[in-house]
Amino acid sequence: MAKTKADAPLYHKLKNRILELIESGRYRPGDRLPTEYELCEQFEVSRTTVRQALHHLKLEGHIEQTQGKGTFVASSKIQQPLSSYISFDDYMKRLGLTGETKVLEFAVVPANAKLAKMLQVAETDPLFKLIRMRYVDRTPLKYSITYIPWKVAPGLALEEIHGSLYDVFRGKYGHQLSKCVDWIEPILTDDQYSEYLEVAVGAPALMVRSVTYDTAGIPMEHSQEIFRGDRSKFVLERDLQSPSANYTGLLPDPWQHEPDGAE
Amino acid sequence: MAKTKADAPLYHKLKNRILELIESGRYRPGDRLPTEYELCEQFEVSRTTVRQALHHLKLEGHIEQTQGKGTFVASSKIQQPLSSYISFDDYMKRLGLTGETKVLEFAVVPANAKLAKMLQVAETDPLFKLIRMRYVDRTPLKYSITYIPWKVAPGLALEEIHGSLYDVFRGKYGHQLSKCVDWIEPILTDDQYSEYLEVAVGAPALMVRSVTYDTAGIPMEHSQEIFRGDRSKFVLERDLQSPSANYTGLLPDPWQHEPDGAE
Repeated sequence: MAKTKADAPLYHKLKNRILELIESGRYRPGDRLPTEYELCEQFEVSRTTVRQALHHLKLEGHIEQTQGKGTFVASSKIQQPLSSYISFDDYMKRLGLTGETKVLEFAVVPANAKLAKMLQVAETDPLFKLIRMRYVDRTPLKYSITYIPWKVAPGLALEEIHGSLYDVFRGKYGHQLSKCVDWIEPILTDDQYSEYLEVAVGAPALMVRSVTYDTAGIPMEHSQEIFRGDRSKFVLERDLQSPSANYTGLLPDPWQHEPDGAE
Repeated sequence: MAKTKADAPLYHKLKNRILELIESGRYRPGDRLPTEYELCEQFEVSRTTVRQALHHLKLEGHIEQTQGKGTFVASSKIQQPLSSYISFDDYMKRLGLTGETKVLEFAVVPANAKLAKMLQVAETDPLFKLIRMRYVDRTPLKYSITYIPWKVAPGLALEEIHGSLYDVFRGKYGHQLSKCVDWIEPILTDDQYSEYLEVAVGAPALMVRSVTYDTAGIPMEHSQEIFRGDRSKFVLERDLQSPSANYTGLLPDPWQHEPDGAE
């Protein structure tokens, strides 16, 4: 089990070296990187090594390659808050970026067993189903599916769901929101997500599933969001002075039938 | 930009159908799934579709395939808290799992420019460099590299670093820890991480980089942790009643030379 692995593969070292040059600002977004040939010369490595390093940098979103034009430093990942709530549009505005929301689907559907349990409604109870794409400066950032019990927002209308749902819950429906629980997992995009997010199949992505509750503990909505990994990083601040105040480690896991881990 | 994609690919539907059977408890960890042939019959799809669905379920850690023995439901992912601090060993104990830590490297190294900036020390100042592997029930869960300024923990010894570093900071060195800022990104494992984590190259993983501060704002440590994606999910609880209390969205991004996003 204990590996004694002193040497990282060459391409890994080269990848990290190039990443350092990007992160230090030596190469800035939009700058052209040296050609493969120049990188071979400069770092005294083989073409294969250079290509592997560039392949990984590309998959993780650090560089972009344009046929016939070369390799360029990609725009920085968009740092997004996890430990607080602010609406998507407002947040992008604060970053000086243009956020855009497209509603792909808005319908009323019957709750299946899983959704009924998650949202504490009866099976076949009506739920709003809302599928949205979020773009930043015209680039897809996330794909999300949201379910809202009908009784939480009776008569919710299409024109109300382009902005912040939380604002609608609080404003029009007078709900007092209490908390949102998020479950975060890294995944690989499949054909469907790849098409929506405009990335290669098998690209890294973050799946964030969440349930929002009001102060009475009633679920307001359940979402599943898929964030493009090459454009997203999350930032979170943890309070170490009152750790018990926000201790969530042993929250039940709703996607698991057994509350205890592996058997 | 607006896609009108009504139909998910068949394998995607099959994958989700099998996932539902796992998540509902119809199939439990360790259960054998039907054979490829049986799945073809049952869902009236082609062998290719079944294989694609199983391939994706495997990469994401939902199933395990054993040559000649069949396909089995994998152990559940280990849900880990993000919004609170609890030591790795204590947390695993609470889950009824056996956590184990292996120290792969423990040395004193000079700070490079990047680490000096991150940890607010001078370049070439001595830093402890600590590389650890964490296992749960003998399965690798995360690989971590931690840097600690010498002056934060002068004379830190090997026998002190097997448990919680926070306990050592607080106990032996009397530091008052204030907060920890985490940056979370999905990545794909490269050769090096794959070897440590015992997964295929290109498997989904979570990279969590963090800096811990004391109450005077002095950095105590900087870590980079790589979590196996097929075994990890994170859970986080966000307070929606006092969102400004933990608003971190516009924290500076230390891996970016320009504090503002894309140009």
